[in-house]
Amino acid sequence: MNLPLPDTIRPIRFRDGTLYLLDQRRLPVEARENAYTDPQAVAAAIRDMVVRGAPAIGITAAFGVVLACAAARRQQEGSWRAQVDVAMAELAASRPTAVNLFWALDRMRRILDACASADQACAASLAAAQAMLDEDIAANRRMGALGAALIAPGRAVLTHCNTGSLATGGFGTALGVIRSAWAGGRVTEVFADETRPWLQGARLTAWELVQDKIPVRLLCEGAAASLLRSGEVGWVIVGADRIAANGDTANKIGTYGLAILAREHGVDFMVAAPVSTIDFATDDGAAIPIETRPESEVLELAGQPVAARGARAWNPAFDVTPAGLITAIVTEHGVVRHPDRESLTALRRALPR
Amino acid sequence: MNLPLPDTIRPIRFRDGTLYLLDQRRLPVEARENAYTDPQAVAAAIRDMVVRGAPAIGITAAFGVVLACAAARRQQEGSWRAQVDVAMAELAASRPTAVNLFWALDRMRRILDACASADQACAASLAAAQAMLDEDIAANRRMGALGAALIAPGRAVLTHCNTGSLATGGFGTALGVIRSAWAGGRVTEVFADETRPWLQGARLTAWELVQDKIPVRLLCEGAAASLLRSGEVGWVIVGADRIAANGDTANKIGTYGLAILAREHGVDFMVAAPVSTIDFATDDGAAIPIETRPESEVLELAGQPVAARGARAWNPAFDVTPAGLITAIVTEHGVVRHPDRESLTALRRALPR
Repeated sequence: MNLPLPDTIRPIRFRDGTLYLLDQRRLPVEARENAYTDPQAVAAAIRDMVVRGAPAIGITAAFGVVLACAAARRQQEGSWRAQVDVAMAELAASRPTAVNLFWALDRMRRILDACASADQACAASLAAAQAMLDEDIAANRRMGALGAALIAPGRAVLTHCNTGSLATGGFGTALGVIRSAWAGGRVTEVFADETRPWLQGARLTAWELVQDKIPVRLLCEGAAASLLRSGEVGWVIVGADRIAANGDTANKIGTYGLAILAREHGVDFMVAAPVSTIDFATDDGAAIPIETRPESEVLELAGQPVAARGARAWNPAFDVTPAGLITAIVTEHGVVRHPDRESLTALRRALPR
Repeated sequence: MNLPLPDTIRPIRFRDGTLYLLDQRRLPVEARENAYTDPQAVAAAIRDMVVRGAPAIGITAAFGVVLACAAARRQQEGSWRAQVDVAMAELAASRPTAVNLFWALDRMRRILDACASADQACAASLAAAQAMLDEDIAANRRMGALGAALIAPGRAVLTHCNTGSLATGGFGTALGVIRSAWAGGRVTEVFADETRPWLQGARLTAWELVQDKIPVRLLCEGAAASLLRSGEVGWVIVGADRIAANGDTANKIGTYGLAILAREHGVDFMVAAPVSTIDFATDDGAAIPIETRPESEVLELAGQPVAARGARAWNPAFDVTPAGLITAIVTEHGVVRHPDRESLTALRRALPR
């Protein structure tokens, strides 16, 4: 069976000087785009999770730089670059864990370094951001094919959080692998953790899969151990927010526990992420900063208090999965089985310059 | 430090022929009691989770039998016992997993077998149900003291679901141990899983602990692995819905995964449950029926759809933790360390007849 690739969703668009972001906080109730022309508003949109997912955050920040260049050109007084640098610092401060954000801003900074005027910066930054978006989608499709090839047909897969079109420029990382595997007849069904507290699985992953007609069953995180014990699932497939040089992987809270449960039940564990997610400057998982998000995300549901008044909450947004629990890291430049410092260094050496 | 036992909540009251149940679906927003005089309405209340928690379900069903006896006496035609048996069958069908329900109904059946008239049955069933309630609270206090004695002071504990006053006649099983341990200065803080999909941790456990001034921090189930890795937690303490003869323990979905994560991080794992929870007729965990609850519990939140239309859900209400993952089962008649068939048989032999 080889179906056409199910790939109908694009969360980030730039047209006529305006950035359009599909407001992921409103999904699945409505698919509404917000329009942005102000880089500060883009930083706020990242912080407030209008857009989320490591690759999507990076691309969005790149377009934030495009808007900053346009604003600096309109301003006409003072240094255009100093103004853009202020905006870039705000964008960099929007979320702390995803390395793609810093990777994207570094790439934009190098582009700007080669520009002599605001006019040049506007044109060059737009070309670079658009290229980043296009490359991301192409990379995800390669990743999807490489990851799907690892999956022996006949069983279901389990995924966590949202790593789909919505988390990227399009197609997705882990969910891209699942899209490819479904089109290739390699998975019977997708199980998706609902992914508390933000319910990205229930709200976003299920929405994407329903859109693309891939059967999906949601489960609460607490049910994952029973599911993995049942033998129905061949692979757990997740994305990554940052991969350290030794393969330790920061991803949505709950991933680390899933990896332990997968190993306990002999289920393979795949991390699908572009090479921009690998931070060779971060030695291991212990060095990855973990964002703690507001207690209200746990204490409230849809703005209504759910917990007793007076209760507190502990709300880390990410956790770190040791490399030893990962069967394979799948990138657009190849698969690293049993990732460790050596195998990731080998991948790095083989990257195109 | 030895504080007075924090114990202010009673979920089940019977007065003047009426059963009052604290409606746990409305907590923590309001603490409202519903009144019942009809045994069928009591069966519906159990099914609809007005009351939940294995011991509380058993006690509630016992009072349901009291109401059935009163109804049979009012009816005056046909066999009173046949009418009560119909009601008991409905009560038995309300929830499938908790063995305390069947244990309580068996105990009531033996009481009724010794009654020659509806009048006798009314008096005897009321005395038996009230004794069951009083014994439950006394058993929980013994269990609390026995469990607390296992806890070396200085660290936090993690609990799952609600096993407190609300889940029992009062004081609680696992939460009773935590109450005792807090009063004895043995725990620094309580971490409570929010416990999706029904959020018993956020709605009920946090409410109880706030009422009794014990510091509580909620977390999403996905964060438990990181918490256990942090070293802050000395014990995971949970209740049980049914314990098989070999120590395998059915409890709220998520317990089995927690037990694996606890062992992975060298954290002790305690099950606190009255001996009525041990089902010596069930050989091992594989023989325990697991209730699957409606998909809507996962797909909706507070009655509002949260998942994309078209998505399905998998919603098992319980899972089974193998005995080998349990450090100790704490009952009102003693502690069974490293539970297995032999040690549970020894406990059974030592029970008062």
